Amino acid sequence: MDFLPKGRLDAFADGVFAIVITLLVLDLSIPQVFENLMPALFQQWSVFLAYIISFAFVGSVWITHSSITALMKQETPRSYRLTLLMLFFVSLIPFTTKLMSFYLSHPPMIPDFHGMDLLSMVETVNAIARSALTAPVTIYGLDLLFTSVTMNAIMKSAIRTPDMLISEAAKNELSALQRRQQYGVIIIIGTLICGFILPMIAVFGYIIVSILFFITPTIHIAKETLRKNS
Amino acid sequence: MDFLPKGRLDAFADGVFAIVITLLVLDLSIPQVFENLMPALFQQWSVFLAYIISFAFVGSVWITHSSITALMKQETPRSYRLTLLMLFFVSLIPFTTKLMSFYLSHPPMIPDFHGMDLLSMVETVNAIARSALTAPVTIYGLDLLFTSVTMNAIMKSAIRTPDMLISEAAKNELSALQRRQQYGVIIIIGTLICGFILPMIAVFGYIIVSILFFITPTIHIAKETLRKNS
Amino acid sequence: MDFLPKGRLDAFADGVFAIVITLLVLDLSIPQVFENLMPALFQQWSVFLAYIISFAFVGSVWITHSSITALMKQETPRSYRLTLLMLFFVSLIPFTTKLMSFYLSHPPMIPDFHGMDLLSMVETVNAIARSALTAPVTIYGLDLLFTSVTMNAIMKSAIRTPDMLISEAAKNELSALQRRQQYGVIIIIGTLICGFILPMIAVFGYIIVSILFFITPTIHIAKETLRKNS
Amino acid sequence: MDFLPKGRLDAFADGVFAIVITLLVLDLSIPQVFENLMPALFQQWSVFLAYIISFAFVGSVWITHSSITALMKQETPRSYRLTLLMLFFVSLIPFTTKLMSFYLSHPPMIPDFHGMDLLSMVETVNAIARSALTAPVTIYGLDLLFTSVTMNAIMKSAIRTPDMLISEAAKNELSALQRRQQYGVIIIIGTLICGFILPMIAVFGYIIVSILFFITPTIHIAKETLRKNS
Repeated sequence: MDFLPKGRLDAFADGVFAIVITLLVLDLSIPQVFENLMPALFQQWSVFLAYIISFAFVGSVWITHSSITALMKQETPRSYRLTLLMLFFVSLIPFTTKLMSFYLSHPPMIPDFHGMDLLSMVETVNAIARSALTAPVTIYGLDLLFTSVTMNAIMKSAIRTPDMLISEAAKNELSALQRRQQYGVIIIIGTLICGFILPMIAVFGYIIVSILFFITPTIHIAKETLRKNS
Repeated sequence: MDFLPKGRLDAFADGVFAIVITLLVLDLSIPQVFENLMPALFQQWSVFLAYIISFAFVGSVWITHSSITALMKQETPRSYRLTLLMLFFVSLIPFTTKLMSFYLSHPPMIPDFHGMDLLSMVETVNAIARSALTAPVTIYGLDLLFTSVTMNAIMKSAIRTPDMLISEAAKNELSALQRRQQYGVIIIIGTLICGFILPMIAVFGYIIVSILFFITPTIHIAKETLRKNS
Repeated sequence: MDFLPKGRLDAFADGVFAIVITLLVLDLSIPQVFENLMPALFQQWSVFLAYIISFAFVGSVWITHSSITALMKQETPRSYRLTLLMLFFVSLIPFTTKLMSFYLSHPPMIPDFHGMDLLSMVETVNAIARSALTAPVTIYGLDLLFTSVTMNAIMKSAIRTPDMLISEAAKNELSALQRRQQYGVIIIIGTLICGFILPMIAVFGYIIVSILFFITPTIHIAKETLRKNS
Repeated sequence: MDFLPKGRLDAFADGVFAIVITLLVLDLSIPQVFENLMPALFQQWSVFLAYIISFAFVGSVWITHSSITALMKQETPRSYRLTLLMLFFVSLIPFTTKLMSFYLSHPPMIPDFHGMDLLSMVETVNAIARSALTAPVTIYGLDLLFTSVTMNAIMKSAIRTPDMLISEAAKNELSALQRRQQYGVIIIIGTLICGFILPMIAVFGYIIVSILFFITPTIHIAKETLRKNS
């Protein structure tokens, strides 16, 4: 078994993560209006939303990958290739997020809700969402799925290959992490299926998860400040 | 308490800083004129100005972040997430700077100053600046504020979490840095409020601070050269 | 003989590799259609194909380079310059791949195959491919060739320069790697010549090799899962 | 005197160098022609030339910077700022190179040389070059000058500040490097002045130097191969 250095895999992965996470910032553009800047900026909401979602998901993949490599002492040609495969799917996240966000903000038509009861309204909205959002939501979900599956494969491979981990304790820790991550894979598959029937739910699921990821540290800070002051 | 490696957070942050600091260089374009290149280049002054301001502020955030992590020996999942949040606001600096610089160089109208006394002129300029610049200056200021506040949260979190810092001396040093940085937060809040009433003052405040940041090392060199030669 | 640090060469190379490998993701664009998203996405197949091929080849160059520097303990000004030269050719891979993929997806004309026998059809297709693809396939092949030749020169230089490698064993390992890599150079030269006579074969050769590179880890995983379950 | 870690300065600088060196690859575009690809590619020669010159100069600055930091053991807030200032001028190299290359390939008018003697022809060409090239060549030269001067300031500062270098021997080595680099500064100033009178000479000076930088390792290899085979 040949071994490859850990440092270069980390540095390369960090470079790719850094580029991918900032990619969508290039899409933010200056509105060429000289009055009423705020409404013009708000019209770009789908671009901002895509940036936040993409930043949050790429960020969480980066944290997971850092947690894994923290337990390793060396890499193999195979772990290098699995990481490349994982990074390939990560590098598509800005694109698939933009796709989903674009179709969310450009509904094909706004129906006439006049005289409808609540159930018919929900059904109508869902029918429109299904025709317009199923494809982008599924593409987005598949991208997340492939990212998670390759990440899981990196963990499994590290657990099975002798001499890759720093210690026996690290093996147990990584096994626990890998089992937990498998639940994540199952949740993504569930959301994928849900996206076929109720695409709006799937979209909002992704949005809420990503915003929660962002807000969590802020909530922690607020809590601590409160505890400290009381 | 789980710990995460310091090296990857540094490498990722350095990658994001490097990308963000060079982003606005993409906006410099070749004027398609074959005579009088210099005036055509000077017409792009707002793009150059945005690049200098953005470079200076991102650079100073990078130095601050380096000073902080120099005192740490390891990181936590929480410090990873706080750093991601901070980098999110940093990654918006080129955009918010461009927004401010664009509206500074595209005033909505040039009034007729003929026959005005000085006070009326100042008032007229400020009224125009207020209508055109208040929104972009406030967005820019909020971005700086969120960057500073999350940076402060990173420091506070490192001070409170046991075993994150390299030594007890580092704790005192970081506490001093954090208190000093809190004054920075207060100054940004002050400039933000000032931006509502006198937006021109706020804008020039930001420009002067960023240019000072750039010129300081040059002044040091000049001084040393003088001292050496005398 | 002056020596230069290994760390900076690795970090810089990883940065360039990370940028180059993600370059073509910028070419993926959102189709501006509100119905039938899937066919609109499939029309972009040449862009996706270019991204996959480019990602796979840059990835494999990165793995080779990591394998080489893993055996070194320090660098010289000359190895720095050879690495720069190699990275120059690597940085052109996204462009040359795009060029090949573009002309593959935009054949100059679709002939009337009506009433042709099989041999004439093959000959006609090849004649068209030759006129349209020979130039881009040759440019692509030359880029791969120069990348391989400079990589080989980096290995040779490291073998000959005293005190660059970590041990005598590393010298033998690198010599073996260098000889194996020379066969790669010969294969590329062969494909280059083939590209003049049968450009379609050369193109599909490149595509198959790059897709194989990507699929290999997945096949490994599938095999392991089967072995584990049986 | 506060010290800052060397690792982060190196990583950040390497990130910026990696981005800046690959920036102009974004300017290479696929010619949208379906016949005669080669002439269409050759029409872009000024873009390719700008890429090669820019790659070569940024590469040589990177090697110089690596040679300097190889002699240091720690950094100061001041060396961080000087490095930022140097990287600012480096980040403008792709733009200033493109500017020079664009005006070189777009002469304002081609005069009628019919019936002119040699001296008049040279004078006419120089007069045209002066009107079209003086501004871009001077801007390019100033960018190189500021890069060299800030690089020199980094070296001087490291020599004077106690405890920044790894050893006393490193101090002598860096002093020698700094003196040699001062000659480079003088040569750039000379070329700058020459650019006012004979801009064509200055342009070709820059092009030859940058191409030599690229070809040198290849010549070394050829020489070695010859020596080995004879």
